[in-house]
Amino acid sequence: MRIHIIGTGLLGASLGLALRGRGYSVTLEDTSPTAQQLASDLGAGEPVAPGTAPDPDIVVVATPPDVAAGVIAGALTAYPSATVTDVASIKTRLLETVRELVTGDALDRYIGCHPMAGREKSGAIAARPDLFIARPWVICSDEDTPESRLTAVEEMAEATGASVTHLDPRIHDAAVAKVSHVPQVVSSLVASQLRHAPLDEVALAGQGLRDVTRIAASDPGLWTQILSGNAEEVRAVLVALRGELDAVIDALALGPGSTGVIARTIAFGNEGHDRIPGKHGQAPTAYAVVTVLIPDTPGTLASLFKDIGDLGINVEDFRMDHAPGRRLGIVDVSVMPANANELEHGLQSLGWRIPESAIEKEGTT
Amino acid sequence: MRIHIIGTGLLGASLGLALRGRGYSVTLEDTSPTAQQLASDLGAGEPVAPGTAPDPDIVVVATPPDVAAGVIAGALTAYPSATVTDVASIKTRLLETVRELVTGDALDRYIGCHPMAGREKSGAIAARPDLFIARPWVICSDEDTPESRLTAVEEMAEATGASVTHLDPRIHDAAVAKVSHVPQVVSSLVASQLRHAPLDEVALAGQGLRDVTRIAASDPGLWTQILSGNAEEVRAVLVALRGELDAVIDALALGPGSTGVIARTIAFGNEGHDRIPGKHGQAPTAYAVVTVLIPDTPGTLASLFKDIGDLGINVEDFRMDHAPGRRLGIVDVSVMPANANELEHGLQSLGWRIPESAIEKEGTT
Repeated sequence: MRIHIIGTGLLGASLGLALRGRGYSVTLEDTSPTAQQLASDLGAGEPVAPGTAPDPDIVVVATPPDVAAGVIAGALTAYPSATVTDVASIKTRLLETVRELVTGDALDRYIGCHPMAGREKSGAIAARPDLFIARPWVICSDEDTPESRLTAVEEMAEATGASVTHLDPRIHDAAVAKVSHVPQVVSSLVASQLRHAPLDEVALAGQGLRDVTRIAASDPGLWTQILSGNAEEVRAVLVALRGELDAVIDALALGPGSTGVIARTIAFGNEGHDRIPGKHGQAPTAYAVVTVLIPDTPGTLASLFKDIGDLGINVEDFRMDHAPGRRLGIVDVSVMPANANELEHGLQSLGWRIPESAIEKEGTT
Repeated sequence: MRIHIIGTGLLGASLGLALRGRGYSVTLEDTSPTAQQLASDLGAGEPVAPGTAPDPDIVVVATPPDVAAGVIAGALTAYPSATVTDVASIKTRLLETVRELVTGDALDRYIGCHPMAGREKSGAIAARPDLFIARPWVICSDEDTPESRLTAVEEMAEATGASVTHLDPRIHDAAVAKVSHVPQVVSSLVASQLRHAPLDEVALAGQGLRDVTRIAASDPGLWTQILSGNAEEVRAVLVALRGELDAVIDALALGPGSTGVIARTIAFGNEGHDRIPGKHGQAPTAYAVVTVLIPDTPGTLASLFKDIGDLGINVEDFRMDHAPGRRLGIVDVSVMPANANELEHGLQSLGWRIPESAIEKEGTT
């Protein structure tokens, strides 16, 4: 299959690297000659002038989302037998705009996609061929989509190592509003409350705050495009969230007698949390967690994992908790429950510090 | 020093274990004979009948927060020469209630504390002697606090391995509202929006959602007490957050032209995020991150860390990202920037899969 990629940023260049690694023929096009050459130099594909790719089977539009519709329409015209797809993270508004620009049968050759991969860096320089491995690749086709074209897009997506999922564009947009866009907004809002807090107060931060605000470090420019592009769905979820927030704020003003609202809020959070799938998309698994205290000196963590390896026990998950003001690490090692006792006693006999009663059950990772 | 602990749940029993391990004499008291006996059997101290501890130097009230004030007042009466302290996570309202119950010089013998330690399990059975190690232990004393009593409480706190911090009660409560209570509320609210989402939509969840909602699994009963007890401070921060949320909701309704509000929200989040101290409470450090793809088979993670250890490189932090629907792990290993190239090439030469261009800078852990 011949693939032509328009837009050689992080996603376009990563896709080129991934597909060339699987033997595909890839051509590249970008409005920036520098970006195009860089992606080509990195091995993502052969650069070509706009509209001159030699008879591509699939054209992938990987431009910034705010110009994607026009580029898709142009590609449907320039390559009249190709299937045209894209990688934009919002599908409904894009499809509407494409429908305004494209008429007739050409529209059937467009299949919207959203590979849910990315990183905090951007540009071809940050590209990597494994970017899509094991990530969801959402395909938004409809009843008018020709079967052979759909199959070709599926094959290309699977060649990158992604997990193909089919969703209606509206359902996709509503889903990413809940699982990605609203968490981003709220994480930013929580972090924002720390802007003027004295550092000795922020120093009381624990792992909870660190987790909630990790994605608050994300890029404002990119997220402004994403949130604006999915404004309706994001707004609907934020309004629902604000309704529950208002109830908490009111309950906190009322004092005793209104604790039911607060308890219900936390309980609703438990319910929602329990719906998030565990590792590898499987149902949440209960692991046993063994906690080990380690001095933070070179090689200690490595030798801990070496010892665990020598015991022949597989680590399902791990978390390292940082100790404020001290050079000490608290490592929670998740293993299958059947292995927990062996691990605990094995590590103890090798001289590792395991707090008493360290074994606990964990609901999900 | 003789320490008497009233309330033998997670914190009281953990404190007993920690202090006995450092040679302190510890007595235990609980309204539940079963809980008292369990803590004693676990080695947390000697059980005594209420009010009969033999001349304690310090009485630590570790009851649930909603009964702490009465128990503190009772202990000041029952032990007229002892210093009385507590472990409740909210200080202002507790101090006010104690002031209503206690008159005269007895009040000077009370020193409020908040060891910022805990876990998702509760009860003496979950206790561990290392619970306080490297955690902040906030002491709220004032100008009337006798120096010798303050020193004794500091010594006890430091004996558990905690890092002692002094804060005014109001400042403490405002700080924990920002760094702990509000993140809890908001995490629960984000998770709550997933309650009715179909599972194939929730399956699009990535690491961002998992991080933001991890603490949404917390206990509703405990958190209702905590949030109610710090209602004023939590409400103030939530109201500020709601103001920013309203601005985002309005901007999303207005469409183009209002993107400045959205960009500013994400940028404010960047600013707040940058104030959170890094590992060990030091200023945020820029680590280099090397990403390794590993099959999720027994021992693989262990042998990865063994190989890193053999290369002589210290791991500063690590994160394992789960791959939906696939048995594959993506491990981000953070090291000092000077070691990144050596690690990447070393692991590659040992046959590990490192995506191209894997090395990136990370702002903070």
